[in-house]
Amino acid sequence: MLQPANLIALLCLCLSLGPSDSRSRPNDLTITKFVSLYSAGTSHVEILLGDNRPSPDTYKTMRNALFRYEESRALGYDVELNTRERQANATIMEAKLAEIEQGEITPHLFKPSQHIFDVLEAINNTKLFQLLQHMPKGAVLHAHDTALCSTNAIIELTYYDNLWICQQAGDLSASALRFAEEKPTPLTEDNCDWSLLSEVRAQYGADRVDAYLGERLTLYPTTDFQDINAAWSRFMEIFGLLDGLLMYAPVWGDYYYKALQEFSADGVQYLEFRSTLPTLYDLKGTVYTPLDTVRIYVETLEKFKNQPENKDFIGSRMIYAPLRNTDAEGVARYIETLKQVKEKYPEFLAGFDLVGQEDVGRPLRDFVDQLLEVPEDIDFYFHAGETNWYGSSVDENLIDALLLRTKRIGHGFGLVKHPVALSLVRKMNVAIEVNPVSNQVLKLVSDFRNHPCSQFFADGYPVVISSDDPSFWKATPLSHDYYIAFLGIASQHADLRLLKKLALNSIQYSSLTVDQKIDALSKWQTKWDEFLDYVNNVQPSSASSQHLD
Amino acid sequence: MLQPANLIALLCLCLSLGPSDSRSRPNDLTITKFVSLYSAGTSHVEILLGDNRPSPDTYKTMRNALFRYEESRALGYDVELNTRERQANATIMEAKLAEIEQGEITPHLFKPSQHIFDVLEAINNTKLFQLLQHMPKGAVLHAHDTALCSTNAIIELTYYDNLWICQQAGDLSASALRFAEEKPTPLTEDNCDWSLLSEVRAQYGADRVDAYLGERLTLYPTTDFQDINAAWSRFMEIFGLLDGLLMYAPVWGDYYYKALQEFSADGVQYLEFRSTLPTLYDLKGTVYTPLDTVRIYVETLEKFKNQPENKDFIGSRMIYAPLRNTDAEGVARYIETLKQVKEKYPEFLAGFDLVGQEDVGRPLRDFVDQLLEVPEDIDFYFHAGETNWYGSSVDENLIDALLLRTKRIGHGFGLVKHPVALSLVRKMNVAIEVNPVSNQVLKLVSDFRNHPCSQFFADGYPVVISSDDPSFWKATPLSHDYYIAFLGIASQHADLRLLKKLALNSIQYSSLTVDQKIDALSKWQTKWDEFLDYVNNVQPSSASSQHLD
Repeated sequence: MLQPANLIALLCLCLSLGPSDSRSRPNDLTITKFVSLYSAGTSHVEILLGDNRPSPDTYKTMRNALFRYEESRALGYDVELNTRERQANATIMEAKLAEIEQGEITPHLFKPSQHIFDVLEAINNTKLFQLLQHMPKGAVLHAHDTALCSTNAIIELTYYDNLWICQQAGDLSASALRFAEEKPTPLTEDNCDWSLLSEVRAQYGADRVDAYLGERLTLYPTTDFQDINAAWSRFMEIFGLLDGLLMYAPVWGDYYYKALQEFSADGVQYLEFRSTLPTLYDLKGTVYTPLDTVRIYVETLEKFKNQPENKDFIGSRMIYAPLRNTDAEGVARYIETLKQVKEKYPEFLAGFDLVGQEDVGRPLRDFVDQLLEVPEDIDFYFHAGETNWYGSSVDENLIDALLLRTKRIGHGFGLVKHPVALSLVRKMNVAIEVNPVSNQVLKLVSDFRNHPCSQFFADGYPVVISSDDPSFWKATPLSHDYYIAFLGIASQHADLRLLKKLALNSIQYSSLTVDQKIDALSKWQTKWDEFLDYVNNVQPSSASSQHLD
Repeated sequence: MLQPANLIALLCLCLSLGPSDSRSRPNDLTITKFVSLYSAGTSHVEILLGDNRPSPDTYKTMRNALFRYEESRALGYDVELNTRERQANATIMEAKLAEIEQGEITPHLFKPSQHIFDVLEAINNTKLFQLLQHMPKGAVLHAHDTALCSTNAIIELTYYDNLWICQQAGDLSASALRFAEEKPTPLTEDNCDWSLLSEVRAQYGADRVDAYLGERLTLYPTTDFQDINAAWSRFMEIFGLLDGLLMYAPVWGDYYYKALQEFSADGVQYLEFRSTLPTLYDLKGTVYTPLDTVRIYVETLEKFKNQPENKDFIGSRMIYAPLRNTDAEGVARYIETLKQVKEKYPEFLAGFDLVGQEDVGRPLRDFVDQLLEVPEDIDFYFHAGETNWYGSSVDENLIDALLLRTKRIGHGFGLVKHPVALSLVRKMNVAIEVNPVSNQVLKLVSDFRNHPCSQFFADGYPVVISSDDPSFWKATPLSHDYYIAFLGIASQHADLRLLKKLALNSIQYSSLTVDQKIDALSKWQTKWDEFLDYVNNVQPSSASSQHLD
């Protein structure tokens, strides 16, 4: 009788034949290959593909081998857990399986099968979420710079002096915010009038105004946008209202600082964000350029890193990502700015991307000639395949992103429908930036159990979990996406090995240099050890003791 | 410059390296292999995986090659269309693309993104659906014998004499139906009283009674069952109400006869259905056995095939599929019955399966030892993976079904989360029976664009499209599932080649013998030629002329 271990080796051979062979019928070339490759296993191959039913014993051996082989393909399988990690794993899996067992009894109450807006509070109260919040998750590699902060942090910024709000007559509803010493000139497009926000607060009461602004600055409470286009237009409205607030130079830096604080507090030690590099303004009418916008980022980051309490923070970098809905001239201007940033702030620039709803924007194909002209020392991090229109030009962005040798793919929701793109992702070792919550809120998927990332996990594709625009769905910087990915998207059997792998991936697939990654890993390891202490001592599990050996 | 054709060959080599290799990083073994395998292409591989941006020309060559290679992987790519088929294809694609273009503008109106109950009528009015209704679709290989007929056909059967209905006092709502000469004995479980249905019709008016029954016998109007369990319990209620009606021996045969008529009229020439083989009854108290149930099927099929208007009908066979929610003794009884049917009606028996909601039933694993005892000359056609609980025991049914060498997999909704099961499906050439509408109504998927079958199509897995229980969702026997699969699940680019392949697959993966398949194909070809005439002459396309060459 062949040992399971050998059987696994055999099955690896058996199953590692690629597309060209794998269409072939049983008992042909496939079998012949095994005979020559692994004669000891031939009989088992025949049992698997042949015409006679196996004995119960052989069946069970084959079954175990298949399951073990399948596990060996999953993301995180190669992670070895030490004793302390195994103990922490017992606690984490106990919390995870409790939610799954309850979910199998009442599926409609299983949180990842519902809309995040309806279960956010409930998630916050779960033991699993609280454990994941304490976990050092490494880096966020996909997030947009004006959608990072909590609602509270944004409201605080609206208390700065000289902030005006443009409102419909006798009504709170606002269409714009702007800082100015004098009342700004009326807006042409909107039928609204400017008042000092401080006066509006005096008139309506600060709580009411803050509550109103809080709602206007997120996608709440709507869980049922008609479709992806409706969700996106509301989404763009928020950016519109935020612009006047955030693009005020003094606020710009403070918003970023608050974001770094909140990400750090949520167990994120490195942030690689995307920015359109808007032109800032101030009260003195200073003329700002995109380079000033970057300068403020760089200075703010320095200030943050110099605080002793942030000594374990790894850092932050920017992907210059202007709007894709433009023309050749626009792209030419983008590339000009890109080169300037690269020259002046080479350390801070991670690379280039194009953003905005793919479905209605221009496909990469339209700009290929210009993008091929981008200097070799600037990397691409393209959004691609954030769609469920199979075979559309948006879908084709996946192939163009890969041919342009993108270092990572933003979203890649449609990748599973493209077997060739999938094999290139593996061969070219391109990480997929998966943003679970974003994909649900923006109407790509409803029940997270159908999220395509299940397959990336199942077959060990390079995945990083990120949060896209957590501010707009009141999510934590990364913990809610981890909760959904771990409980709703991964297999029931996926454990701390997957979580650790995801954290390590987020550093491995960042734009950091090898030396920087080594430093980053040691800073992460410190936090990881603290996390294990927390789980094993502060949060003991009734089950953990059994799993110690 | 390498020619695209060679480039494709190169890419095939490049991409056909399987999992064991494909995790490797660029510029290692992978590249080396190409150098030795295909030196002419090396430079292009380096362009693809190397460190320098390609020239625009090379980029476009690579791009075309990649897209052509990806197309070549899709299901149906190997089908060659003749001139008449290309003309029909133009008409069909014009109808398909018109719906997609509209959908990209208003996604919430795209029919496959909505619940089938809300768009059934609208679908019936589309040109694409009407074309698909006329198409000879070959076989239905996954359908349950008491959920085949249209509501009207069932209502007609309720006009037979001696049918009693058990109702709550002073209220139409019924809990059971039964044929009897005398008033049946009261039901213990339900608080209802028996009346002759004919008298109830006289009292309430036939239209009202028929409307009520019509609704009770489908899952309408509920589009928002709380979850899969809620949908399934309503689903089982319908079977409950139907039992007393259909298990009356005279009705049993007539229901099957009507089903054959309706399937045939919808372009289905062969039906391989699943049956629990219930014990029938009649007015004279005759004692029936499962073998009698089969006998009535066989006699009814003969009667149907002997009608001259059915000369092109291929036939019908049964998969004995009792309820999975049983124990070892139950399975032992099943296998006993199975052997009797095999002995008495070897021609009519296709094989064996177990049915009922997988999530709450027993997994195949529990019965493996007994199932391995089933005679080698009886094939398995197991339901497996009709779930989105990743890593559950239901999910594991996929591996057991394959290890038991099932000939086809019923549903396989969870297959995409199991890379090893997927490669076995290909190597063992096991067809996946995909039932799109059923998966939505029973709450596995909401937007059809996220149905995993997109990937089976994309990578050329052996797929057959079927309808499961069309009676319960007022769908046609197969056309609605074809409409959804072709418009909502397949790529925009998928055309008549996919449709033809699906029809041919349904015959290839049936339980028919090679000789029977040859006869079946010639009967299908006759209908196919009529279909092309219909599309090209009765339904000329404004575009078709351009596509004639």
